[in-house]
This record gives sequence, structure tokens and C-alpha cells, in this order.
Amino acid sequence: MEPIAEASITDVAGFSAGAVHAGIKKDGKSLDLCILASERPAVAAGVFTRNKVRAAPVKLAEERLRSGRCQAVIVNAGNANACTGDRGMADARRMTELAAAKLGIPVNDVAVASTGVIGVHLPMEKVESGVAAIQLSRTAGHDAARAIMTTDLVSKEAGCTVRLGSHTVRIAGMAKGSGMIHPNMATMLGFMVTDAAVAPSFLRRALHEAVDRSFNQMTVDGDTSTNDTLMLLANGAAGNPALDDHAVDARRFKDALTWVAAELAKAVARDGEGATKFIEMRVEGATSDDDARRAAKAVVASSLVKTAVYGADPNWGRVLCALGYSGADVDESKVDLRIGDVWLMRGGEIQPFDRQAGVDALQGPDVLIVANLNLGSGKGTAWGCDLTEGYVEINGKYTT
Amino acid sequence: MEPIAEASITDVAGFSAGAVHAGIKKDGKSLDLCILASERPAVAAGVFTRNKVRAAPVKLAEERLRSGRCQAVIVNAGNANACTGDRGMADARRMTELAAAKLGIPVNDVAVASTGVIGVHLPMEKVESGVAAIQLSRTAGHDAARAIMTTDLVSKEAGCTVRLGSHTVRIAGMAKGSGMIHPNMATMLGFMVTDAAVAPSFLRRALHEAVDRSFNQMTVDGDTSTNDTLMLLANGAAGNPALDDHAVDARRFKDALTWVAAELAKAVARDGEGATKFIEMRVEGATSDDDARRAAKAVVASSLVKTAVYGADPNWGRVLCALGYSGADVDESKVDLRIGDVWLMRGGEIQPFDRQAGVDALQGPDVLIVANLNLGSGKGTAWGCDLTEGYVEINGKYTT
Repeated sequence: MEPIAEASITDVAGFSAGAVHAGIKKDGKSLDLCILASERPAVAAGVFTRNKVRAAPVKLAEERLRSGRCQAVIVNAGNANACTGDRGMADARRMTELAAAKLGIPVNDVAVASTGVIGVHLPMEKVESGVAAIQLSRTAGHDAARAIMTTDLVSKEAGCTVRLGSHTVRIAGMAKGSGMIHPNMATMLGFMVTDAAVAPSFLRRALHEAVDRSFNQMTVDGDTSTNDTLMLLANGAAGNPALDDHAVDARRFKDALTWVAAELAKAVARDGEGATKFIEMRVEGATSDDDARRAAKAVVASSLVKTAVYGADPNWGRVLCALGYSGADVDESKVDLRIGDVWLMRGGEIQPFDRQAGVDALQGPDVLIVANLNLGSGKGTAWGCDLTEGYVEINGKYTT
Repeated sequence: MEPIAEASITDVAGFSAGAVHAGIKKDGKSLDLCILASERPAVAAGVFTRNKVRAAPVKLAEERLRSGRCQAVIVNAGNANACTGDRGMADARRMTELAAAKLGIPVNDVAVASTGVIGVHLPMEKVESGVAAIQLSRTAGHDAARAIMTTDLVSKEAGCTVRLGSHTVRIAGMAKGSGMIHPNMATMLGFMVTDAAVAPSFLRRALHEAVDRSFNQMTVDGDTSTNDTLMLLANGAAGNPALDDHAVDARRFKDALTWVAAELAKAVARDGEGATKFIEMRVEGATSDDDARRAAKAVVASSLVKTAVYGADPNWGRVLCALGYSGADVDESKVDLRIGDVWLMRGGEIQPFDRQAGVDALQGPDVLIVANLNLGSGKGTAWGCDLTEGYVEINGKYTT
């Protein structure tokens, strides 16, 4: 697996993209509508929010991806098309019709995603003229990544190459945050593409495995969105023998996919609303990997841990507290805990530490916390960000 | 049921209290150690944190209350005596020994609770001289309520009288917040007393019912503490025939107990760290009362709802989103939603509303949000507070 520098989805053979400012975002200039398309129908898989209030595009995309096939996705930012009733479903369908007509492909091979404010109808005349203005190219991947942003400060992209036998395939993706981020299936919006040839059922399983170790281990604010969507398209342009669970390179491909997904998830956490620091929580010695992931996620989701990191306050009891309520097996009399290189607890015994060293370990921009529960061999990592006045300010004024 | 104005625990017959500044809090003046005692052994019940990391006093108090009997409780603020290992357990035991010796009662009839910073050993010499200095009286209830405060701005007390046949009994309580508040069994610290005579098993059930409808429906920041403790002592001084499940007045007593508990829980939410507004979320029409409570709690726990309330931003999609991920049955096409008197959704249809009226409904200090899920007859309420820059500031600098 080799990372691709400044990767974008159009680095992958057979994928093109295009983006415009359609006017859904109100600033009069930001890209807010994009189409991502494969030159041929792709094997596809998706994961969607587990929120029971699901946006119209989520319902429609899930329906379309049930076939395991997709050729293009149309995405808008600035409006989530959620809680918009029958008209919202009609608008989502219309978006796929516009993209299908533009590309000359069947409407059933087009998926859709939306992100932005909830409870407002889409301005469809703007979407229509926007679609007409989009020009797809093999170089517009970065534009597409910007067109799906809402309160994100930076676009999130990642990609890599993987050697599968005599073929080299590419995997790339883009994602957006940056509030209402506590994925319970997928992040708000993420799109990954590969030119690998894959069996549909293998792709589904590989995607679920990658998501459980990436997007589902990342949180900004504990709110699971109505629009969480992650799609993966594999168009086979690399010409490799189609991968399935029995392929020699199956593990290598899955690991590369997980790597790209984790890079995107980390980028979302790093750009959390108002965030000034990125937090990585590693849990080792849990009774299972699941338990380790659960414990790690509880720590990065804790408002008290997040504010302590923000204030560079080595108030490590809050980490223990979050481990304790995570649902994972924890016996505090066995725990080892460190922040960066500063040991705070060993075998459940409080370690005297130099307070300034503890403060330094929390100065960021990257903060690492490691706990060994000393109960088993389970490992897991989760990512998050600090909680700042900036988060409060951004979210106290979102629709205004 | 008749509320008692400016109630305190010593308004209840046979209970006395005393508090001092022992020096556990570092400001050199605030009350930080108190003893609450009954003139005779009381029937007692308690609920404790479900966090797997449990402070020493939680473990000890739970053990002591297993007998269903308790005569006194010693409580300190400023130090949680959590994650403190064997020495922490010894310190907790020592606190009960000091109180028992002072009162001349068996140590097994004394319970203990602590709140404050985690992971620091108690200054036991200060506790010892503090206990020596405490003077118990029938008028020091308000002092005790202040002695259990940490970052609380105001003390929380409530009480009422209830007529049981020819006897009038009193119920009163005190509680403290105000961060690490997302009780999953009890609030951080709460103490309730009554002079009613009760059967031990009835008291346990009555307490659990009251907690599920009060403290467990309240959240400040989603962090379930290591020290959550709620105790209820019933000393029988009122002389009524002992209440059990079959008593004519059992329901009346339970309702009064729930009322006192809910008053305390609401006071904790209102005084949440950094809070400027109190939020009450009512859910009606759920498939069950449990579902309604779950849905209501998810809304008041949502960072995005809390910041929107802070900013008086009628971004009601965030309420729908939280209902959707609460785990309760929700069909957004049926939901009625209003903030104050401003209708936002009826039968799942977006209602045009005057934006200024929506802003006004969120100006506080009391914000009411009501959702009817229109799926059944379940009802539930939850309480919380807004999320502000103040919360971030307080918690970025707690141990410093």
C-alpha cells in the first residue's frame, strides 16, 4: 500500500467529476453541487445513517444501491433535504433524473446525497441550472471534494495504490464533516472509488469492515446525522481478476480500503467544528477489539475530555471516567494510562507526574492518549477533537 | 402534596445536619464537609452510578446500604476519592469511622459520598479536624446543601408535605451538579430524607421509580460520573403505619417522592456548568413511556440542540434528528413539533413560522419543546441546559 500525494477521486482510472456553485449555499460563490461518474457501471456498496429520521436522498440512495451497481452520484451541500416529506423524495428523484439525463445513463444507476440544513425544501430550479452547468473531467476531483463541504474549513481527500498480483489498483475517497458528526454507520458524507475489479458481496463486506474501523470510530459532537452516507464504487478499470473473499490479495485490499477510510475519518475529526486539536485515543488490552473500540470512542466523545484537552488540563480522571461508562469491561485497578509520553497510572496506581509535562503533552495540535486495560488482547483506536468556544459559536448561529 | 418553601433536609422531623470548611476546597472558605444524621436508625435505599469505574465511597456506601438501614451520611466536596486504589477505600472507611465515633453509632450505619476531582488522594488530616469541628443542629440543612457543591452556582433543595391517612409526613432533599452530569442511575450526589415510616423493599422500589422519572431524565454534558449517588433515608418519626406496596397511600407517597426528586433534578439542570437557559423537552404519543423518556433525553443531550437553544436559533431539524437517533420509535411523517407556542411541524409537514417568534420562544431562561410522535400514548419529559462558551471555559480549567 502506497499513499498517493494530494489524492483525489479522479486519480482513479475511469472516474470523472464536475462541480459548480448552483446557489444552494447562500454566499454566492462556494461550490455546492457535484457529480461523480464512472465511465462504466461500477460495483457499488453503501452504508447509511441508523438515525430513524432519514433524509430523502438517504432513502433513495439506499434503494438504488441495493442492486450492488451504480455509475454516478449527484451530491449537493447547503441543504440536507431531510424532514421534507413527499416533496423531498420527489426532489431527490429529480436530482438523479437530471444527472442520468446529462450522462446518458439509466436513472437507476444514479445515487444521490445531500448535506446542510434540515427541514427546508431544495431550490430545485437552482439544482436544474446547476446540473446543466456542470462539466465533468478527469481532473476535477478536488473541486468535487470542495463542493460537498458545509462548515468544513478544509476538504478531506485520501488515496493509495495497492499491488494485487500483477496489477496495481487505486483507491481514493473524499468526505465532509464537520458538525452533527457521530457516525453510527457512516460519516455524514463520504465517497470512495477504486478501479479494482471486485465481487459485489466482497465489496459490501470490505466496506463494512473499513467503516467499523474508521468512520464509526470518529466523533465530533455526538450527534448522529439524518444524512450519513458512505458509498464505494469499484469500476474494474484496473483489469485485475475480480477480488472475492478467497483471493490471495483480499486482505491487502481490505487493509488499503480501511487505510483510506481512516485517513478521511481522521481528517473529518481534525476539522471538527471549532476544533483546535486532534485527539487519538488508543485502547489496548481490552477483552475484545469491539470492547477496545467502544472504550476508545467513549473517551473521544466525552465533553469533559474534549474540554480538558482544549485547556491542556491533564485532568486524566475524566479519561478513566469515560472508559468506565463506555460499556467496555474495565477494572480500574489494572489500568495503565498515559498522555503522550507522560504516565499517569500504572496497574491502577496513580503515578506522580510533572504537571508541566502533562500540560505540554496536551498542547497539540495532535494529542495521543493510550490506555492499556490489561484484561486481554483487544485493540482499538478512535479519533475526535477538542470542544471549544468556537463550536458553541458556530452552532449557536448556523441557520442565521 | 404541598411544597415546603425554602425547604431543607432538616425540615424533616428527626434529621439534623452540620457542615464546615475543612480545607478540601482550596478557596480557604467554602463549606466542603458535612454530616447528615437521623436521631434513630432509618430505613434506607440508594442508587449508584453504573460507571464501571466507581469511586471508593460509592463502593462503600452501596455495601453499607445493602442492609436497608442507615443512620448518618458523611459527605465531602472538592475531591471525588475516585481512582485512588486501596488507599482510597481506606480513606472512605475512615470517614465513616470518624462520623460514627462523633455520633456514637455503629460504623455500619454510616454511609459516605464524595465529589470533586478524580485521581487525587483525600487530605485525611483535614477531614479529621473537619469532622471534629462539625456541630450538628436541626437548622443547618441549608449549610449541608452548600457543603456538597463543587462548580454549582446555587444549592439545590426541595421538600414537600404529604398527607398519609391521619398523619402528615415530610420529604426533603438536596443535590449537587453541575458537570459530569448524565446520570445513569442517580445524579452526582443527592440525599433525600423523610420522616415517613416505610417498609424497606417499598422504599427501594419507590426510589427507583422516582429516579427513573427525575435524575435519570436530566443531563448536563453526557458524562456519567464515577461518583453518582442518591440516598434516601426514612426514619419513621412521623409515626404513620409503615407504608408498603399495598398501602392506600403508597401511590401518593411515591408521587410526592418523585416530585421532590424531579425538583432537585431540574435544579441541577438549570445550574449546569455555563448554562444560561433551562430546557424542558416533553414527548407525547410515543409507543411507550420508556420510549418517550428515551426520546426526550436524547434531545436535551444533543450538543446541537443545546447550542441552538443558546443562540436562540430555531433550527428545529436538530430536534428531529435527535429524536431519530434516540432509539425510540419515530416516524417523521407523523411528528408534531413546537417550541413554546410556535408550531414547526404538524403530521410531518413543515409549518411556515414567523422566525422572530421562533427566536423569542428560545430566549429563555426557560425553553419548552414539545413533540407528539403520534404513535401511541407514551409520555415522558427530560431536562437539560444550553451549551455555552462558559461550559468550555469552566471545564478547560477545572484542575488548575
